[in-house]
Amino acid sequence: MAVSKVLIGGKWIESAGKETFQALNPATGELLPEQFPVSPWSEIKEAIQAAAVAASAVKQWPGERFARFLEDYAIEIEARADALVEAAHLETAYPVSPRIKDVELPRTSNQLRTAAQAARTGAWKQATIDTASNIRSEFGPLGPIAIFGPNNFPLAFNGMAGGDFAAAVAAGNPVITKGHPAHPATTRILAEAAYMAAEKTQMPPGFVQLLYQMDYKDGEKLVSHPLMGATAFTGSRQGGLALKAAADKAGKPIYLELSSINPIFLLPEVLEEKGESLAEEFTGSCLMGTGQFCTNPGLVVVPATSAGQDFIKSVTEKFKAAPTGTLLAKNVEQNLLDGIRTLKAAGAELLTGGEAVDGDRLTCQNTLLKVSAADFLKNAEALQSEAFGNASLLVVADDVKQMLAIAESLEGNLTGCLYSESTGKDDAAYDQVAPVLRQKVGRLLNDKMPTGVAVVPSMNHGGPYPSTGHPGFTSVGIPASLVRFGMLQCYDNVRPHRLPATLQDKNPTGETSRLIDGEWTVADVSNS
Amino acid sequence: MAVSKVLIGGKWIESAGKETFQALNPATGELLPEQFPVSPWSEIKEAIQAAAVAASAVKQWPGERFARFLEDYAIEIEARADALVEAAHLETAYPVSPRIKDVELPRTSNQLRTAAQAARTGAWKQATIDTASNIRSEFGPLGPIAIFGPNNFPLAFNGMAGGDFAAAVAAGNPVITKGHPAHPATTRILAEAAYMAAEKTQMPPGFVQLLYQMDYKDGEKLVSHPLMGATAFTGSRQGGLALKAAADKAGKPIYLELSSINPIFLLPEVLEEKGESLAEEFTGSCLMGTGQFCTNPGLVVVPATSAGQDFIKSVTEKFKAAPTGTLLAKNVEQNLLDGIRTLKAAGAELLTGGEAVDGDRLTCQNTLLKVSAADFLKNAEALQSEAFGNASLLVVADDVKQMLAIAESLEGNLTGCLYSESTGKDDAAYDQVAPVLRQKVGRLLNDKMPTGVAVVPSMNHGGPYPSTGHPGFTSVGIPASLVRFGMLQCYDNVRPHRLPATLQDKNPTGETSRLIDGEWTVADVSNS
Repeated sequence: MAVSKVLIGGKWIESAGKETFQALNPATGELLPEQFPVSPWSEIKEAIQAAAVAASAVKQWPGERFARFLEDYAIEIEARADALVEAAHLETAYPVSPRIKDVELPRTSNQLRTAAQAARTGAWKQATIDTASNIRSEFGPLGPIAIFGPNNFPLAFNGMAGGDFAAAVAAGNPVITKGHPAHPATTRILAEAAYMAAEKTQMPPGFVQLLYQMDYKDGEKLVSHPLMGATAFTGSRQGGLALKAAADKAGKPIYLELSSINPIFLLPEVLEEKGESLAEEFTGSCLMGTGQFCTNPGLVVVPATSAGQDFIKSVTEKFKAAPTGTLLAKNVEQNLLDGIRTLKAAGAELLTGGEAVDGDRLTCQNTLLKVSAADFLKNAEALQSEAFGNASLLVVADDVKQMLAIAESLEGNLTGCLYSESTGKDDAAYDQVAPVLRQKVGRLLNDKMPTGVAVVPSMNHGGPYPSTGHPGFTSVGIPASLVRFGMLQCYDNVRPHRLPATLQDKNPTGETSRLIDGEWTVADVSNS
Repeated sequence: MAVSKVLIGGKWIESAGKETFQALNPATGELLPEQFPVSPWSEIKEAIQAAAVAASAVKQWPGERFARFLEDYAIEIEARADALVEAAHLETAYPVSPRIKDVELPRTSNQLRTAAQAARTGAWKQATIDTASNIRSEFGPLGPIAIFGPNNFPLAFNGMAGGDFAAAVAAGNPVITKGHPAHPATTRILAEAAYMAAEKTQMPPGFVQLLYQMDYKDGEKLVSHPLMGATAFTGSRQGGLALKAAADKAGKPIYLELSSINPIFLLPEVLEEKGESLAEEFTGSCLMGTGQFCTNPGLVVVPATSAGQDFIKSVTEKFKAAPTGTLLAKNVEQNLLDGIRTLKAAGAELLTGGEAVDGDRLTCQNTLLKVSAADFLKNAEALQSEAFGNASLLVVADDVKQMLAIAESLEGNLTGCLYSESTGKDDAAYDQVAPVLRQKVGRLLNDKMPTGVAVVPSMNHGGPYPSTGHPGFTSVGIPASLVRFGMLQCYDNVRPHRLPATLQDKNPTGETSRLIDGEWTVADVSNS
């Protein structure tokens, strides 16, 4: 079988790389037939240069042009729905329904359309006009964006179609996608759709480009290249931090989504009220998608009450009884088993699970571990090791003081949840623990599991280091996610006809929110 | 004379440091009498811990509390106007008028009041509410902020009172100021004013703290300490990059303002129209404050026309005729002389100046250098070396193509200016050069020198690396400058009474702009 082509400079070309790889079907352990290339540096450099040419070509385009591409791309994706669903199912073992076809696919095209709307109105630019000084500013495009997508959302976070892609394009930037090697065929089909949309909407060659794989060192060269604008990376902490070091040294922005264990605090009284329903809710959240969500709850603080004991017993039974899901890839299986071993070595007791299930399928038994708060606090760093997948660590706390100490010991996380009794019996405990947890997480939840990530303007899918690289940015939530790929561009005394449309006196769309003399408005600049 | 005390944990205490330093009067070359300590790590650690306690104490306070402190501080500064002006004059040799008393001092108190207003309304928080999903988010305080102020604005950018200080406090964060060693007495008086304001407005101990000096390595430990929120630094590239490396490695945000040569392009026809007035304007901008502005024009691209020759001749005469200003410090003098030598070694011809003036005063003659565009392009990196002070390099370009090539060769800068003929004769040249320059600078100007930095919402005092560390942030311009010191805090399904006031249904001030269901409004959330 021929090696699949890479998309560079507006053409599908044979890779110059000699090394190739194949994806694996996680449900059977068998290699899938399609061969994909590992791109050499010469090829990556070509892509960078083509992206830089594309960035120059489009940097003064109105948002409408990017909106049209994104909307056409959504249509092209929908036209390839069957092929995409089949490829993603083979490469991830996620169920066709309810997941790939009826959750991820519509989410992907909806995200592209939402981003298109943000590009069209230019709301993300935060256009700011001061009439007395005649100074005007907005976020403008930054330059070529490299996107390293994760393994766990083959469509909705795919580097070629997901949230980062939509945001980078809506902000007016060309994209170089480094596909995830666990689902290259899915990514290829997306790139074919993107290519078709780019042709139809007359985007310049090099506006969207795809490389399937590259050496780590070449990844570092890519993110730190002078012609690049920024990088978005979602994946492992180790890989992300290596790219961060390279980008930081070159002064290039890099937005990372790394590990997160998403702590949950069950305050002392809530289990008395609804312990069994919480056991159900937690099990569902933790095992959904075989636990392979960035916001999977990996740490649960449980009170050392008899209701707490009942909760632990119930969850253990549910974990045992639930079917063992399939994991995404060999390294996911390996990392999960290693993570569990790390937690055990650090003092956690295994309640259930902990081993791969026999057979070719990639698996780990549904796994629960337990540790006392006192022991957790003695070894808090190791006991916060991420065991990405269908596993979670229960920490049994004697009192609120221990819960608070656990919150204080936490690293930065994407999310943190507090469950509390409904009539106020936990309010004093909440008031102690919540303020500490608040500073450690991007999204604070009440009475709700963290695994759903709604695509709404207020969503923050971000958090303090090491869950991401900067606590001020989100990778989900439009228009906020676009700002990552913009630079602040100020125009001081610039002649009116030379201003971008969004900064001219007339509101270019009639619906672009702008901060004029300190007030948000969709009105024109008044010439009185 | 006793060594001045440091301000730590709400008390003026004797430093444990054994090393001391004195500032120098740049006008006489004599040491000023007051002794200031170099703080050891133990003392810096105490300040960090006190700041962390203060951060916990204030993190749920309404903006009103920070506003009151900032406004009271402005009053305390005004009450010490005479002492501040005298100290700043002695330590910087800047004229009392028109500079310290009638420009910097009012700017400083005005900035504090503008930041107070932003804190009060909470406009900077960008509160975002989606009612259908009941998800709400805003920027909230990040934690203790370390501020390293520069030498060139003893009041308006002082780490204890300037733009970064105002922004960090208005965003609800305690501040640890590392004063600039060139003006420690000025900083002490500011800290005394801040201390008094903090007492009067009941800020917790450790909310504002002052250290005069520390070892480089201790600075790196400070910016990367786990309890710190972020750092703001304005100063030399070398010092800033060392701190950046430390902060980046620890995953701590750091906002840098480093070097910038602020290129000016005189397009081919504009000198025909007003060459002599531009010579005047440029000379004024370049020599103002002895050239010690972050946005001082250090590179001017001049057309190789006879009008260009006239411009060069006229500017050279004006530089020779103008009085030689005083430089801020020994190292400023040394760096400027070194910078000029570097430019000469890289091929620039000295037109005038280049040497210190005899006497004890710190000086360098007003200096102009010249190089052809062809030679500039051969050695563009070295010829972009910053010569901070009253010096500038003129680059003579044969045509627009060379001007474009120069723009393409530029590093990131804070500002870039284009002067063009008023009836449109330069428009074609503008359309070629401006888009390239746009991507290289934070603020693009037309027909205006860059040295004025208005404190208005649209101002961007920032730019691509290496002028700053990230192209999306500004250190001037309120409320945008506050966002640097916030973390994005999302509340998902959080019970109403537990939400911060700015995210509750009722608009807490009646004038806080919030993005509710996609529209900016000051209305309450409607419960219909």
